[in-house]
Amino acid sequence: MTVRSSLTIVLAAGEGTRMRSVLPKVLHPLAGQSLLAHVLAAAPKGAGTAIAVVVGPGHEAVAEEAKKIRPEAVIYIQRERLGTAHAVLAAREAIARGADDLLVVFGDTPLISAATFARLRAPLQSGAALAVLGFHAKDPSGYGRLIVEGGHLVDIREHADATPAQRAITLCNAGIMAFDGKRALEIIEKIGNANSKREYYLVDAVAVVRNMGLEAVVIETSEDEVRGINTKAQLAEAEAVMQARLRKAALDAGVTLIAPETVFLAADTKFGSDVTIEPFVVIGPGVTISDGAVIHSFSHIVQASIGSNASVGPYARLRPGTSLGDGARIGNFVETKAAILEAGVKVNHLSYIGDAYVGADTNIGAGTITCNYDGFSKHKTEIGAGAFVGTNSSLVAPVKIGNGAYIGSGSVITKDVPDDALAVERNQQVNREGGAKRIREMKTKAKTPKA
Amino acid sequence: MTVRSSLTIVLAAGEGTRMRSVLPKVLHPLAGQSLLAHVLAAAPKGAGTAIAVVVGPGHEAVAEEAKKIRPEAVIYIQRERLGTAHAVLAAREAIARGADDLLVVFGDTPLISAATFARLRAPLQSGAALAVLGFHAKDPSGYGRLIVEGGHLVDIREHADATPAQRAITLCNAGIMAFDGKRALEIIEKIGNANSKREYYLVDAVAVVRNMGLEAVVIETSEDEVRGINTKAQLAEAEAVMQARLRKAALDAGVTLIAPETVFLAADTKFGSDVTIEPFVVIGPGVTISDGAVIHSFSHIVQASIGSNASVGPYARLRPGTSLGDGARIGNFVETKAAILEAGVKVNHLSYIGDAYVGADTNIGAGTITCNYDGFSKHKTEIGAGAFVGTNSSLVAPVKIGNGAYIGSGSVITKDVPDDALAVERNQQVNREGGAKRIREMKTKAKTPKA
Amino acid sequence: MTVRSSLTIVLAAGEGTRMRSVLPKVLHPLAGQSLLAHVLAAAPKGAGTAIAVVVGPGHEAVAEEAKKIRPEAVIYIQRERLGTAHAVLAAREAIARGADDLLVVFGDTPLISAATFARLRAPLQSGAALAVLGFHAKDPSGYGRLIVEGGHLVDIREHADATPAQRAITLCNAGIMAFDGKRALEIIEKIGNANSKREYYLVDAVAVVRNMGLEAVVIETSEDEVRGINTKAQLAEAEAVMQARLRKAALDAGVTLIAPETVFLAADTKFGSDVTIEPFVVIGPGVTISDGAVIHSFSHIVQASIGSNASVGPYARLRPGTSLGDGARIGNFVETKAAILEAGVKVNHLSYIGDAYVGADTNIGAGTITCNYDGFSKHKTEIGAGAFVGTNSSLVAPVKIGNGAYIGSGSVITKDVPDDALAVERNQQVNREGGAKRIREMKTKAKTPKA
Repeated sequence: MTVRSSLTIVLAAGEGTRMRSVLPKVLHPLAGQSLLAHVLAAAPKGAGTAIAVVVGPGHEAVAEEAKKIRPEAVIYIQRERLGTAHAVLAAREAIARGADDLLVVFGDTPLISAATFARLRAPLQSGAALAVLGFHAKDPSGYGRLIVEGGHLVDIREHADATPAQRAITLCNAGIMAFDGKRALEIIEKIGNANSKREYYLVDAVAVVRNMGLEAVVIETSEDEVRGINTKAQLAEAEAVMQARLRKAALDAGVTLIAPETVFLAADTKFGSDVTIEPFVVIGPGVTISDGAVIHSFSHIVQASIGSNASVGPYARLRPGTSLGDGARIGNFVETKAAILEAGVKVNHLSYIGDAYVGADTNIGAGTITCNYDGFSKHKTEIGAGAFVGTNSSLVAPVKIGNGAYIGSGSVITKDVPDDALAVERNQQVNREGGAKRIREMKTKAKTPKA
Repeated sequence: MTVRSSLTIVLAAGEGTRMRSVLPKVLHPLAGQSLLAHVLAAAPKGAGTAIAVVVGPGHEAVAEEAKKIRPEAVIYIQRERLGTAHAVLAAREAIARGADDLLVVFGDTPLISAATFARLRAPLQSGAALAVLGFHAKDPSGYGRLIVEGGHLVDIREHADATPAQRAITLCNAGIMAFDGKRALEIIEKIGNANSKREYYLVDAVAVVRNMGLEAVVIETSEDEVRGINTKAQLAEAEAVMQARLRKAALDAGVTLIAPETVFLAADTKFGSDVTIEPFVVIGPGVTISDGAVIHSFSHIVQASIGSNASVGPYARLRPGTSLGDGARIGNFVETKAAILEAGVKVNHLSYIGDAYVGADTNIGAGTITCNYDGFSKHKTEIGAGAFVGTNSSLVAPVKIGNGAYIGSGSVITKDVPDDALAVERNQQVNREGGAKRIREMKTKAKTPKA
Repeated sequence: MTVRSSLTIVLAAGEGTRMRSVLPKVLHPLAGQSLLAHVLAAAPKGAGTAIAVVVGPGHEAVAEEAKKIRPEAVIYIQRERLGTAHAVLAAREAIARGADDLLVVFGDTPLISAATFARLRAPLQSGAALAVLGFHAKDPSGYGRLIVEGGHLVDIREHADATPAQRAITLCNAGIMAFDGKRALEIIEKIGNANSKREYYLVDAVAVVRNMGLEAVVIETSEDEVRGINTKAQLAEAEAVMQARLRKAALDAGVTLIAPETVFLAADTKFGSDVTIEPFVVIGPGVTISDGAVIHSFSHIVQASIGSNASVGPYARLRPGTSLGDGARIGNFVETKAAILEAGVKVNHLSYIGDAYVGADTNIGAGTITCNYDGFSKHKTEIGAGAFVGTNSSLVAPVKIGNGAYIGSGSVITKDVPDDALAVERNQQVNREGGAKRIREMKTKAKTPKA
């Protein structure tokens, strides 16, 4: 079987005013990635595939995002808003190259899957000129109904124009279509604007195809997969669908999620076996959790790698560039950033470890802070293996602490500490007998109103 | 159109024993405010409105809450418990003044809205003597059924007394009523106690009105709006309804709530445009969040003002009196209280900033603590603009740190620091070569059992 | 009435491969306890009761867990997997002792209650030879249907073998049974393996009983109570059911749960009256919360006792061995472990109090850390009553701080402090005029590219 070539046109020119945001609609994030990125990730990729993205004038940020996700994408600008078919024709040059299959999808339907694109393309191989993605809507009001006769799609009837019998149809138009690429341009150019708004609508492709004596068909999918995002409420609903998918996949892979509905995952989260995640955990992009690791409640993890049997949290924040070795322990109220912590390292309480390397089995005491920023630039802290850093220590970077070194509690360490050395920065403790009593008497007197 | 005068009687004398609490029922909080406060806030206000609150004997706290929310409220005490009509008559003096409309509402129906009060009053203008608020109950068992004939309310039939046909009615009595104020006293005084408990029930007003040849009508609302609170479970359900309302309003206003069901809002939370709130955030009363601000996960905010494009959390606790300037950043494990932080201030990690002023663009290092309490009273810390406070610093208030000053890490600052000065409180770091090794040997020997 | 003796056989030999875990299935935790522990806790206990647990070869950990929960349990090993009846006969020796009632239950149905076991045993007293636990399944596909005629159970028909009429039956076999103990061995030994897999199935006991002219009956329960756990998704669903039960019980007892669905409880959590728990709280095993205490959001509590009117959190982590006196306050970003804090103690911010005793009304300043670990062993910190510990203090254990003592901010305390003494470990603050300015100029110059 030869691989069929494809062009996917992503329509991303909408203003999205109902989002009430200065951010272009398709750039709003879902599970940590833009809506557009989700669509582009699902679109056909590899040999023989091409991508065109149609953006509105001035939407450079949309174009940039498209190029970031799919560098091969070609950007077209829709200068006037004259309907969906008009938007598609902004990419006329790309269509004219005549890929075997032409896919048209909207940039605001982020839940679409690669499998659905593949299913939608299949009828084209069997001779159909057009395949339209449909779904059974719980509440079909407002959607165009798909009129199917004898296995063929004969019409898409807008809700306003539908007869009562047609309104009873629940199979609705998702707006996503696949055309026979050799005929696509001819079909789309035949679409007229004889309607009240004088716009060119892609749904009219069905009538054009039928008039040309060609075949149109429907491919069905779930309503969830074709949710379009027009409002912040719909964005939140799509996030819920996406999170439900990610949680189910994690459970199926054997991850223990004690309360799945309280765990937020990213599309790229990777799990080893026997991982446990307690309630109330947020995981952002770029996280790998190895076998047997436990993520305790109230943890927040982004772009971090967690070793086997490591323990994280509760209340641990692992920021980008954190790498935890096997059996490492990050405890409560601890933040790490750009920090490599080797196997067996313990940072159990109230610490900030940033721009740092910590050797195996080192124990970092409560309240330890790497002073990585001096107000001007960032510097690195290196701590050897088997070291012990006392509580409430400040490690003023750049600084190196040797293997097996011991830092006394409350020290501000500004100079390197050799291997196996004991470093202390401290004064003598002075006890003033009765001193507290005298303070109390003085303060109490100060508060007593004078006679 | 002349404004009709009104008297709203809030019945708040119930003991609420099913709440299993020493706190009077109507003082339990919902979305941060007492049940009574919600009802009083929804009741008609402005010119020509009066409020009467009927409380039980000894319920001074209820009376105080009522006066706090509506200082014009007059408190009446129901000394005996002889039914709802008897409770209303505790405010006989107020009724006798003859406002145009008399509204009777319960102090434990906190979800009622001002719009519903307005709708309930409307029929009185058209000549009805009584308007009863009704709702379609999912499960009507236990509720009084509203018997409507020819558009008129002809009876309220208690569940126990209802025929099977009447039990099939789902339109139920919410207990909230509006009377023609000129006839209200006459109507209510005609209510008898010819029932098994020898009590005076307000529902009997319908029969009285009918017997007087006057008109009673039903105004419908949703079941959610008239939920009464009798148990902690019902209180939690009402909180869920209230939070769902607040979240929907925020989404509709364009706030990005990634997981709305995990964000708790207050009735008075104010949002600018393009605000984002991540999962697991608790916002209490008195919070304003300006344009473009981001509230990260696990943040807890009460009575605070957040500037444009500010970033809060994760794990930030903003307590009352916090004001963040534009672009300010409050990071993880940071608490602020009565603290004004000007534009561009950064407090990124593990700090407590209380009773403090911090000038623009100052950077507060990790682990910094304002020592605002000396065991006797609270004192203020003032930090200038463009300053840099090193990590693990203790700022012992009262103390002033000048513009552009620099505080060395680990310092305890007890004296004022001039503008542009460098302040350090520290000793020499001493490295003892081999010291850690010797400690290890000693400790290991101590642990080894003797031969 | 004489107490009937009982033997409960818990079948716990399954591999649970669908859990995708190296941990034996019945050891997975639910609400903080293993599945097996839940079943063993519900099984009949006290005089005349015996427990047998059938485990797979090599499952010593399962045996250990069983002995931990019910020390009287006798462990039997099922060496071959030849069906449920075969598994029961692994405990033949125990059955042969002839207790009045024989109960057979699976180790992976953790939601079963003691009351249901009691109901299941009741028919045996009235002469039935077998009582089978049934439930109405929402989706009965895959379950064995209970065929009941004239009040008697006449057959259990597997889904695959059922007629369409039988498939319409929703009453399904939960797999849990009670036998007349005197006849149980005879019944179970009569079960044959004339089926495709050549295995011995306990469900065939119904046919055996009927063939013996004896009576079998059905006892019904809810589907939730007999959920079996085969996957991580089912484990999460069971946790949700369990948490819903615990939350409802807490609400019914008068606990204020503002958002019950965001509070995680343990089966043994004990509440006084007028306790309030805010959203996002995790409570593990062994927690007692006394009258009037408030647990603020984002708190995490395990094996701790919280005094009357105490205030915990937000962001407080109380670890095992924490005891808070009346009116004690634990604030944000505070961790306690093996710590007794007497009445009125305040630890409001950013502290770690471990292996410590703190006397009444003592105030622990922000950033205070008990240095309980020196890299070798743990030591204790004792602080008297009415003391004041300044911010960012390190208390190096073992150390004692007297009643009414006062510790200056930023001190590292290594020696005992007498009652009423003032202890300080600090240096002189040095202000270098213009020092910050010089640093800025130097750093800025360093960053400026040379001409």
